[in-house]
Amino acid sequence: MPFLMAAFVLGQSVKSMEISWSHVAPGVWRAQIGKPDSPTLLSAAKDSPEIDALRRLGEASAKPPIDLSSATGLVADEFASARVPLAKDEKLFGLGLQMHGANRRGGVYHLRVDHYSAGQDRLHAPVPLYVSSAGYAVLFNTSRPVSIYAGVGNRRGANNPAPRDRNTDPNWDAQPPSDAVEASVQGPGLEVLVFAGPSPMEAVERYNLYCGGGALPPRWALGFWHRTPSLDTAADVEQEVAEFKKRDFPIDVLGLEPGWQSKSYPCTFAWSPQRFPNPAAFVDGLRSKGVHVNLWSNPYVSPDSPIFKALEPDYGSHMVWLGPAPDLQLPSAARTIADFFTKNHLDIGVSGYKIDEIDGFDNWLWPDHATFPSGLSGLRMRQIYGLLWQRELDDMFRRQNRRTFGLVRGSNGGASRFPFALYSDTYDHREYITGMVSTGLAGVLWCAEARDAANGEEWVRRMQTAAVSHIAQLNAWASGTKPWSFAGFEDAVRSAMLFRIRLVPYLYTAFAQYHFRGTPVIRPMSLVDGGEETDQYLLGDDLLVAPMLTGEKTRKVRLPKGNWYEYASGKFAGSSQTIDIAPALDEIPVYVREGALIPTLGDNARNATLGPDSELIIRHYGPGEGRGLLYEDDGETFDYEKGHYAWERLTTPAIGLTGAIERTEGNYPSAFRKITWKHIGSG
Amino acid sequence: MPFLMAAFVLGQSVKSMEISWSHVAPGVWRAQIGKPDSPTLLSAAKDSPEIDALRRLGEASAKPPIDLSSATGLVADEFASARVPLAKDEKLFGLGLQMHGANRRGGVYHLRVDHYSAGQDRLHAPVPLYVSSAGYAVLFNTSRPVSIYAGVGNRRGANNPAPRDRNTDPNWDAQPPSDAVEASVQGPGLEVLVFAGPSPMEAVERYNLYCGGGALPPRWALGFWHRTPSLDTAADVEQEVAEFKKRDFPIDVLGLEPGWQSKSYPCTFAWSPQRFPNPAAFVDGLRSKGVHVNLWSNPYVSPDSPIFKALEPDYGSHMVWLGPAPDLQLPSAARTIADFFTKNHLDIGVSGYKIDEIDGFDNWLWPDHATFPSGLSGLRMRQIYGLLWQRELDDMFRRQNRRTFGLVRGSNGGASRFPFALYSDTYDHREYITGMVSTGLAGVLWCAEARDAANGEEWVRRMQTAAVSHIAQLNAWASGTKPWSFAGFEDAVRSAMLFRIRLVPYLYTAFAQYHFRGTPVIRPMSLVDGGEETDQYLLGDDLLVAPMLTGEKTRKVRLPKGNWYEYASGKFAGSSQTIDIAPALDEIPVYVREGALIPTLGDNARNATLGPDSELIIRHYGPGEGRGLLYEDDGETFDYEKGHYAWERLTTPAIGLTGAIERTEGNYPSAFRKITWKHIGSG
Repeated sequence: MPFLMAAFVLGQSVKSMEISWSHVAPGVWRAQIGKPDSPTLLSAAKDSPEIDALRRLGEASAKPPIDLSSATGLVADEFASARVPLAKDEKLFGLGLQMHGANRRGGVYHLRVDHYSAGQDRLHAPVPLYVSSAGYAVLFNTSRPVSIYAGVGNRRGANNPAPRDRNTDPNWDAQPPSDAVEASVQGPGLEVLVFAGPSPMEAVERYNLYCGGGALPPRWALGFWHRTPSLDTAADVEQEVAEFKKRDFPIDVLGLEPGWQSKSYPCTFAWSPQRFPNPAAFVDGLRSKGVHVNLWSNPYVSPDSPIFKALEPDYGSHMVWLGPAPDLQLPSAARTIADFFTKNHLDIGVSGYKIDEIDGFDNWLWPDHATFPSGLSGLRMRQIYGLLWQRELDDMFRRQNRRTFGLVRGSNGGASRFPFALYSDTYDHREYITGMVSTGLAGVLWCAEARDAANGEEWVRRMQTAAVSHIAQLNAWASGTKPWSFAGFEDAVRSAMLFRIRLVPYLYTAFAQYHFRGTPVIRPMSLVDGGEETDQYLLGDDLLVAPMLTGEKTRKVRLPKGNWYEYASGKFAGSSQTIDIAPALDEIPVYVREGALIPTLGDNARNATLGPDSELIIRHYGPGEGRGLLYEDDGETFDYEKGHYAWERLTTPAIGLTGAIERTEGNYPSAFRKITWKHIGSG
Repeated sequence: MPFLMAAFVLGQSVKSMEISWSHVAPGVWRAQIGKPDSPTLLSAAKDSPEIDALRRLGEASAKPPIDLSSATGLVADEFASARVPLAKDEKLFGLGLQMHGANRRGGVYHLRVDHYSAGQDRLHAPVPLYVSSAGYAVLFNTSRPVSIYAGVGNRRGANNPAPRDRNTDPNWDAQPPSDAVEASVQGPGLEVLVFAGPSPMEAVERYNLYCGGGALPPRWALGFWHRTPSLDTAADVEQEVAEFKKRDFPIDVLGLEPGWQSKSYPCTFAWSPQRFPNPAAFVDGLRSKGVHVNLWSNPYVSPDSPIFKALEPDYGSHMVWLGPAPDLQLPSAARTIADFFTKNHLDIGVSGYKIDEIDGFDNWLWPDHATFPSGLSGLRMRQIYGLLWQRELDDMFRRQNRRTFGLVRGSNGGASRFPFALYSDTYDHREYITGMVSTGLAGVLWCAEARDAANGEEWVRRMQTAAVSHIAQLNAWASGTKPWSFAGFEDAVRSAMLFRIRLVPYLYTAFAQYHFRGTPVIRPMSLVDGGEETDQYLLGDDLLVAPMLTGEKTRKVRLPKGNWYEYASGKFAGSSQTIDIAPALDEIPVYVREGALIPTLGDNARNATLGPDSELIIRHYGPGEGRGLLYEDDGETFDYEKGHYAWERLTTPAIGLTGAIERTEGNYPSAFRKITWKHIGSG
């Protein structure tokens, strides 16, 4: 039932137009203002809405979350704009992978894909999605840069306050409130999607499900990642892995940096015959030790690449580091790349990629007016280039019925289903944590990697933050820093890495919730209870994480509603209150909701992959009954899409009693042979 | 003789097109790529090229300064772009009122009018003009924001270096050089103007003359400006002026801040009956003391303004501080404003305006997609709003055959002839000096005003910098700081202010050179001899100024070719060399070219306006003959346009001899009755 509405018209030269809303999925409405052009973000990401899952979220679909009839659209002087109403007390969250702040109301955002360095406009993932505290979300679905005036700007004729005299009125307001979000693109049209709640969390879930559901990584990807120095040879890498094993540090993924290629910047995509004379044996050898190989690349093609000539018709007008950029909108380019990557990388067991420098910055990338053979300008291609690469690489693995997980430096709206985490050249610890929190509002993942440190204390805090990130990576290819580099801090670092490994069953379940229900893995307080903290978050359903920053000895943690317990000790931490904590250097402040059952691996676990001796330890917190969730599947393939998975309900009647595991959905038989129920703390 | 050329075409979907160059004025060529839309910067500024003056610059018009046939244009996916060739060793200067750096080659600039806060993109005057060290200048004449890739970006098929392997080649270059400047707008077309040299200075002169010649302020505007606290009454202001006189401080212009209006933010433009019950008598009273009144306003109209209703059809879609913005492209709006301003301000003797907040920032101004009744988007209106206001205010005074001089916070290309200086809310001392230097490459003026200081030393250095700026202003309306506020520093401040006043004949001559020949008043070293210093400049023909920064006790000064002498002492300072100096707190480092004759006022001068007892002291430096220039006219009207002016050649045969003053052009009789020739220093 579309809503017909008159456009908001002002001025003599503005053409009147009508826009209408369609109900496109349960709880999702769409309007087109003007003539939106292709691709949009969602079409670039090949969106495939999970309609059944959306339906399961409930019948919010019966009515739109806001009065859509008061939203308006306008096309004038090459701008298409939308005006979405805003109530007085609404807060607005989101607008991409933001490194500062929470409530976006009162700001103006010119969202563009870029190498983040500062500010709020140029971001690795400038997802034009905002989430209202009133319980709905709005996506501006366009491959053009969007400018968003988040409750800023007073349109004539709108519901504005009366002006005040600044000369004499102490209540004069430098930025009078506005009753709307206005958003615009310089282009012929703009598509707007509204996602119902009724809660902000459910609005985000609908967004993620509409984008195909959140990424479900292979299980191994939740373990520990390490990247070796660029010019390491196969033998160097093997020795590094041996050193990890020898020192009892977990390692699940080994990332190779540019030196694995015969030439880089621009790239050949081909193995260096000097450094990696037998890539198949090398990859195989690591796999036999439980280590998956991830390959760095950027998309810019060296004239010495075996596929340079085949890609020739598909290049954009400008080069990056003197290598042209293939237009991945063209099936021919996608096919050439897929064929070569599949044969030379996937077929010998490579597990995924890290796609670098896909985002900028301006001095490296093509200009806005660059042309691509598919017809897109450089400006628009830059907005979606990260999406296109994620899509093609994901498809490549999907054709082999293998899941991948990797890294990418540029993304955008529509990316929820892509198994890639973002990363940055910046390295501010607080920004990393804020960024992690903001991903929960943007349908992207973030790698708060550790790279280097000024001292052992920083090294520990950085590694701890990595351990509670979407992807736990030690990325010391440039610094050469090892987990054990700081004398006296090796045990604390190992402890953080093993904490991560043991948490994998819980994390994997959280990712499954992301996939099947759209619930973010890392959940900002804004979605939990409307809080504006950017330095704490829920990890999955029941863990509250409050990472310690480098140099901090104490901090405050706001415990949401209910009783909370310390993860390690089970000690009661507080109830619906803000607490002051002073954790020891080897402690990550993690709190558990009363009654939670947290599925973890036993102390013998040294990587994320399950083996015949994998023990499931179900940790129980609080004095009463326990309940929790466990998701299982083969951890490797897409067979879960055919029902080969299991959602299991964990329950225990009381402290000290063995609980029950009941499969509620799917047909996958549990892989755990040894299960221990363990109450943590005195209760 | 237009040059016909084939467009540069790449990719399947790019339409081929031809562009051609026209020789539009002596030494000026123009190309149109696609279909440039109106207004351009130059048409918004109502450009009126000074063809005769351009011709007098010489016959560079015989051939274009660069190989125009190798420049190319392209229109694709809504971008119009130009590619202008660049030789290997060229440096590029300019790109507006920049607060950092000199050589722009290697940077990417997204030029937009904004409230400057940081960076190189969002500027009060983002003039899209670059000046090459090879001796030509290029203007992208469009009211759209221009992105300029200044020797950045490697287009396929262009003259690029060969790629290198970053893995192994230590000479790998993170930003390979490009053989062109590429520039683009998102719009249907782009006009490019090329200005011949043969020197960089002459290229700038041609630009300024093509824009109508530089501004020639009224003589009084070169004196000292002061702005009083916002809520001061007429009596308060009169007392402040009396205090200046009593303490023997010069004051030529008194600026009133928002409180002169009955309401502000938004503005009534009407006098406050409480604070200024008799504006005509007030203005008259100050005029009788040699003080001119300048009125602050911003353009946003209060519903309580007497002209609110008359302007109603001419407002843009959005309000600023809840006051709508009149569309000055409409003759009706311009007329309503001019009528009211003329009757209520000009007719009672007001001398000019300070037009505030015409530039941004985003949170205050209209959105990019705002609409204006003349058909312009907010984006484009913002790029030219400062130009339109300058044009209308200048016209208003011109109709009374009176010159004005004022302040404006937003400007752009085409503004050379407008008698307005730019200013900012920022207050970094070094940025102020860099900004001042950059104006010489942008056809705008800059007010390096003093506002406040942490201590007496800063106060003196700030006032000294103001004294060698285009407009010497003490702007302490917010802080209430007076010239004498810091005990023990009053004399040093007075000394800087009187230095300024005494320099007025020389400064006025420099402004006349700006007007008649296009030569900037403040001349960056890049135009003088290709230097990249941003902390020293030539002021007029013969003075080298090297302001001391707050907190600095010593600095380096690079003396250009030839012998230079200290201004105050006449002591030999050096020759074509860099010197280390440690000036006393009451010294402004100013150096004079050997043989220069500097026309100044006598020690009794207390303001810029000449009186019957005004003495002309001609200061002579160096051991040999002297030569200099003096410009005179009535200092108030536009009668100089009808020949009522005088260019006078100053010569003296040797030290200690009285020289000669010979009128070489114009019919204005010199106003000086008492003339003293004074050799400075031992010679």
